[in-house]
Amino acid sequence: NTYGEIFRISSFGESHGPAVGVVVDGVPAGTEISESEINQELARRRPGQSHLVSQRKEPDECEILSGIFEGLTIGTPIAIVVRNTNARPEDYKGMLEIYRPSHADFTYEKKYGVKPQSGGGRSSARETIARVAAGVIAQKVLDQFGKIEIVAYVKKVHDITAQVDSGSVTRADVDSNPVRCPDPDAAQKMEEKIDAIRKDGDSLGGIVECVVRGAHVGWGEPVFDKIDGCLAQAMLSLPACKGFEIGSGFAGTDLKGSEHNDPFVLKDGEIATSKNDSGGVQGGITNGQNIIFRAAFKPTATIMKDQASVNRSGEETVLKSKGRHDPCVLPRAVPIVEAMTAITLADHALRQRTRIDG
Amino acid sequence: NTYGEIFRISSFGESHGPAVGVVVDGVPAGTEISESEINQELARRRPGQSHLVSQRKEPDECEILSGIFEGLTIGTPIAIVVRNTNARPEDYKGMLEIYRPSHADFTYEKKYGVKPQSGGGRSSARETIARVAAGVIAQKVLDQFGKIEIVAYVKKVHDITAQVDSGSVTRADVDSNPVRCPDPDAAQKMEEKIDAIRKDGDSLGGIVECVVRGAHVGWGEPVFDKIDGCLAQAMLSLPACKGFEIGSGFAGTDLKGSEHNDPFVLKDGEIATSKNDSGGVQGGITNGQNIIFRAAFKPTATIMKDQASVNRSGEETVLKSKGRHDPCVLPRAVPIVEAMTAITLADHALRQRTRIDG
Amino acid sequence: NTYGEIFRISSFGESHGPAVGVVVDGVPAGTEISESEINQELARRRPGQSHLVSQRKEPDECEILSGIFEGLTIGTPIAIVVRNTNARPEDYKGMLEIYRPSHADFTYEKKYGVKPQSGGGRSSARETIARVAAGVIAQKVLDQFGKIEIVAYVKKVHDITAQVDSGSVTRADVDSNPVRCPDPDAAQKMEEKIDAIRKDGDSLGGIVECVVRGAHVGWGEPVFDKIDGCLAQAMLSLPACKGFEIGSGFAGTDLKGSEHNDPFVLKDGEIATSKNDSGGVQGGITNGQNIIFRAAFKPTATIMKDQASVNRSGEETVLKSKGRHDPCVLPRAVPIVEAMTAITLADHALRQRTRIDG
Amino acid sequence: NTYGEIFRISSFGESHGPAVGVVVDGVPAGTEISESEINQELARRRPGQSHLVSQRKEPDECEILSGIFEGLTIGTPIAIVVRNTNARPEDYKGMLEIYRPSHADFTYEKKYGVKPQSGGGRSSARETIARVAAGVIAQKVLDQFGKIEIVAYVKKVHDITAQVDSGSVTRADVDSNPVRCPDPDAAQKMEEKIDAIRKDGDSLGGIVECVVRGAHVGWGEPVFDKIDGCLAQAMLSLPACKGFEIGSGFAGTDLKGSEHNDPFVLKDGEIATSKNDSGGVQGGITNGQNIIFRAAFKPTATIMKDQASVNRSGEETVLKSKGRHDPCVLPRAVPIVEAMTAITLADHALRQRTRIDG
Repeated sequence: NTYGEIFRISSFGESHGPAVGVVVDGVPAGTEISESEINQELARRRPGQSHLVSQRKEPDECEILSGIFEGLTIGTPIAIVVRNTNARPEDYKGMLEIYRPSHADFTYEKKYGVKPQSGGGRSSARETIARVAAGVIAQKVLDQFGKIEIVAYVKKVHDITAQVDSGSVTRADVDSNPVRCPDPDAAQKMEEKIDAIRKDGDSLGGIVECVVRGAHVGWGEPVFDKIDGCLAQAMLSLPACKGFEIGSGFAGTDLKGSEHNDPFVLKDGEIATSKNDSGGVQGGITNGQNIIFRAAFKPTATIMKDQASVNRSGEETVLKSKGRHDPCVLPRAVPIVEAMTAITLADHALRQRTRIDG
Repeated sequence: NTYGEIFRISSFGESHGPAVGVVVDGVPAGTEISESEINQELARRRPGQSHLVSQRKEPDECEILSGIFEGLTIGTPIAIVVRNTNARPEDYKGMLEIYRPSHADFTYEKKYGVKPQSGGGRSSARETIARVAAGVIAQKVLDQFGKIEIVAYVKKVHDITAQVDSGSVTRADVDSNPVRCPDPDAAQKMEEKIDAIRKDGDSLGGIVECVVRGAHVGWGEPVFDKIDGCLAQAMLSLPACKGFEIGSGFAGTDLKGSEHNDPFVLKDGEIATSKNDSGGVQGGITNGQNIIFRAAFKPTATIMKDQASVNRSGEETVLKSKGRHDPCVLPRAVPIVEAMTAITLADHALRQRTRIDG
Repeated sequence: NTYGEIFRISSFGESHGPAVGVVVDGVPAGTEISESEINQELARRRPGQSHLVSQRKEPDECEILSGIFEGLTIGTPIAIVVRNTNARPEDYKGMLEIYRPSHADFTYEKKYGVKPQSGGGRSSARETIARVAAGVIAQKVLDQFGKIEIVAYVKKVHDITAQVDSGSVTRADVDSNPVRCPDPDAAQKMEEKIDAIRKDGDSLGGIVECVVRGAHVGWGEPVFDKIDGCLAQAMLSLPACKGFEIGSGFAGTDLKGSEHNDPFVLKDGEIATSKNDSGGVQGGITNGQNIIFRAAFKPTATIMKDQASVNRSGEETVLKSKGRHDPCVLPRAVPIVEAMTAITLADHALRQRTRIDG
Repeated sequence: NTYGEIFRISSFGESHGPAVGVVVDGVPAGTEISESEINQELARRRPGQSHLVSQRKEPDECEILSGIFEGLTIGTPIAIVVRNTNARPEDYKGMLEIYRPSHADFTYEKKYGVKPQSGGGRSSARETIARVAAGVIAQKVLDQFGKIEIVAYVKKVHDITAQVDSGSVTRADVDSNPVRCPDPDAAQKMEEKIDAIRKDGDSLGGIVECVVRGAHVGWGEPVFDKIDGCLAQAMLSLPACKGFEIGSGFAGTDLKGSEHNDPFVLKDGEIATSKNDSGGVQGGITNGQNIIFRAAFKPTATIMKDQASVNRSGEETVLKSKGRHDPCVLPRAVPIVEAMTAITLADHALRQRTRIDG
């Protein structure tokens, strides 16, 4: 439950327990952080923002318990807590005895030997609050290294794929519609599709693409903590994520080496590459070009349809769903992808400081 | 350069230095290990096995320096060294002043402040010897948990995709042809295509698929060290790997939740799933079904064609390649994917032991 | 701010911030834990228990935020928070501009670049609340390994040394007087001495001895994480601790090998040693005999006397103390020493589980 | 078997296996390192240097396998190997079946489930070669931070205590006699005493004191990785070490706070302390004064006298010693203490780089 070597986050909390939260260690002193900045970002992650996502109302107000004195970090661990207020365990009561298909009820029970908790417990998406809160701090650390922009957006929902210029897209573009897809035409179609599937009680998956502009050359720690490997782990650690690719990714396997290689050129006197199939990373180290990667999210496992399953007594049965559901997590995944990216980069930016002979 | 928490490997060595090697810590005592077993697996990774791969002759005989007494592990770190014998630095001389496109020369120089080494130094594929050696030990540890079979194979080369039954494929099937693709028809076409691209001085990429049969339920450490996240990091840590997906992966984004969810059923009295779009992992923990994932490898960066680039003095120039090259790393990647999978699973199998109240 | 490999604690919080707390990860599921048990142990650490220690009133009621469901651990991180209620920053106002001798004001300012916080901030003894809370959980984990008793006691205050039979001393013996010294005569003298020094506005140091009965053979991870080395680090991490010794310790340097070696003998058919100068540890691994070690605590730095010092502007000046002070931390150190011992042993007990071929 | 967070060493090797060695990771690129420098320091650790220490002849020539290119570090892991050449297992044959008192034979067997190896295996002092080799590299890293001098020396052998001015003592002073005690009178007496005990087949313990001059203010990572706590762990990780104290240490418990506190003063315009009972560390962070600590070493467990013990079959018996022995490890411990100190400081110096907002 801990991630990072220098910029290090420890996440805690279950969906229907008293609170979720995070302890962030390794933050350089003198960094400005406020609860309101964190709350603002938590609001982007929150359910109930639009008709597209889960209708739970969770105010998600954070409290900073340590590490900040008069608005500035003091170099000690920063503990942030968000209370769980709108848990409605009665919605989940019936589920506890039947394993929900493609949920983690079964694996958690077998791993830890405890019976499934209502709301998914630790495997609930609610845990990602910890990441979003830590991501705000990570972005502040990155700001100390220059203008580093991280922008994620919904690239694909089901069979609808957006056209986005990763070089110029902004968070404002992304947040301009409830789908968080900066291609207005695609966004419109996605919205309609999600609306339809919600009414049908079913769910959809898709792809989030993320671009980082302004990363320094030299971040990443081969051979195991390559920057792309760490980003891959970070993305796969998100609920429902089933795939990660950087630069050309899987499509790059259709190219020849002579097509795929990124020629070095001079741009404004600086060494750059004329194209970017590498996705900003070569040999696991950032090369100064934009980092571009994609994360695939499966359709949400919670659906409003009857499903065949097995109960805890080992009998085949039918799971009858009720309660609330998120027909498509993609819009809410966007700030979480950004947060995990910021956390990963902040850690590597600080690690690189130990590499340089001062 | 260290990977794993309990089963922990520390890799060292550059392509054209005296040796590459690995220190493996955390291996339970009493495990049988011999140099010949490791050499056998190193032979699968070695260049020069067929006309399809690099023609370098590297005998790759390992020496075990510690951790073994009378053929058995004694619980202390196992150090394994493989000497570099066939380094031909003269082949690489000309390259040192010009950054090779999509190689790590540029990023390593900027990160560490040292000039590029011949042969790629630490970023060379030669480093993967450490992983294959450690993988043999990891498989021995897994054997203590029952019959756990890890089989990887070439699923795709350029535009040729194989049909493989992941439930039954064996390593013997895989090694029955030089492409390491267990679909004979596809293998034949891949071989011809690689042969042709080699003559053309170009290179091809592709996809390795890997199946694990027999993994216990309960391996994986949410929320950050999920088993799929760790496998993703492990794969992305391999040279040329640009993507990872598990189960349905990117294609799963085209499905609805009602199609994607894996219903629980009873098989021989055990709880199982009737299909496996989850790829054997739910909530980051193994569910007892086969683990299935894929890793995308870009076409090899080294090609025998002139390429535009920039030299270390910051001038645009043309890189004229010479020497030897691997037109397609996929066949050699197969044992490395298996090794990193074994290492990751052995670590998680041992970590799970600390979770259980004995 | 994190300690342990498997049983892993992350401490947070400053003396005069909103709260202090701890996140404990790696606890096996199914362990019974309640807030009242933790509060009970916090009460042993609390100031204001007697006229001997600081008169601050801190209720120190904990709240468990996660990791517990229906009274049992569920395998996920356990977050515990204790609010700071009785901070009186005005007491410390004057001190902020003058470095307090032998306090950490100066070193914290130089390390982190932030001005000294009232109350010592992170270096305050208040941080040890986190350790005591985590220690309660650690003891519960140890209970799963059999009857493992950890008893610490005040062995020495200034020039008064107690006679204690480490083989039989109990926590009840220790808590039978406010000094926490189970030798009644010595306790009486210590109490008088501490009382006198308190009136004089000065402070005293001393030694806490700790015995562990019932530890298994085989705990400790050479060559760097030897059990005695980890205990040493744990003790030196406590405020005011300046020394650690195990078994014969420094006095053992006065012996010859033939006097110091502990002969192996049979006791009730089990291999044991006839005496225990090793302190229960050989080669960094527990040998099944009682673990016995001592930690030296310097006299408290806060005294009610004027002291020469330098202010933040770099001028020599006189520090005039006011407020409250602890004339002798030894009695309060006892539960903290026990807690850090339990945490260290629980971690090693769980690590040992990965060493055994099951 | 791994120590350090950034400057990170992984030690491997058993006394009577093929080799011992170390992998050092995290060394900034561009650091000059040669095999001859390491060999020179290994010679200080080696047995057979004088009549005072073990008469084994071990040439101890190292080979660097990686991480160095043209005499400079390149930022990748540095693997160093020293072959074992003078193992005489026949000397140890008889011992294997009888547990040697106060050796680690018994605990290693119980921990790992393997029978005792000749020569002590991993618990042998021969493992410290890895530390001395890594220490040379650590000192090179420290050199990049200014003039940082680490000098250890024998402070006490049995009942003979030396008088040493820690402010001025040099390595040349220390190496001027075979006891490595810079007080010539005490050295003479120690030498005679060790000689006499050697003839008697017995052994002696003692204390090594170590001073560090020139450490920066701000090294140490509270609350668990305090610099003194890390030094304590480092010392206790050495074979035969049973105690650690810093500054006033155990003797400081005899002082009052008003006597013990170190007043801040100005020296040459810099903030310093007028005395140094803190031993250069306050709150676990270096304060710029000399770091002074002591490590207690028990008398060597190997003696040339018959000893009562138990054999592996669980029968009481008598162990008859033969072979060679070190009557006093103190002189050889000196370079090892220096090495572990350099390693600990180098790690913290690099960690501090991540604390500063650049």
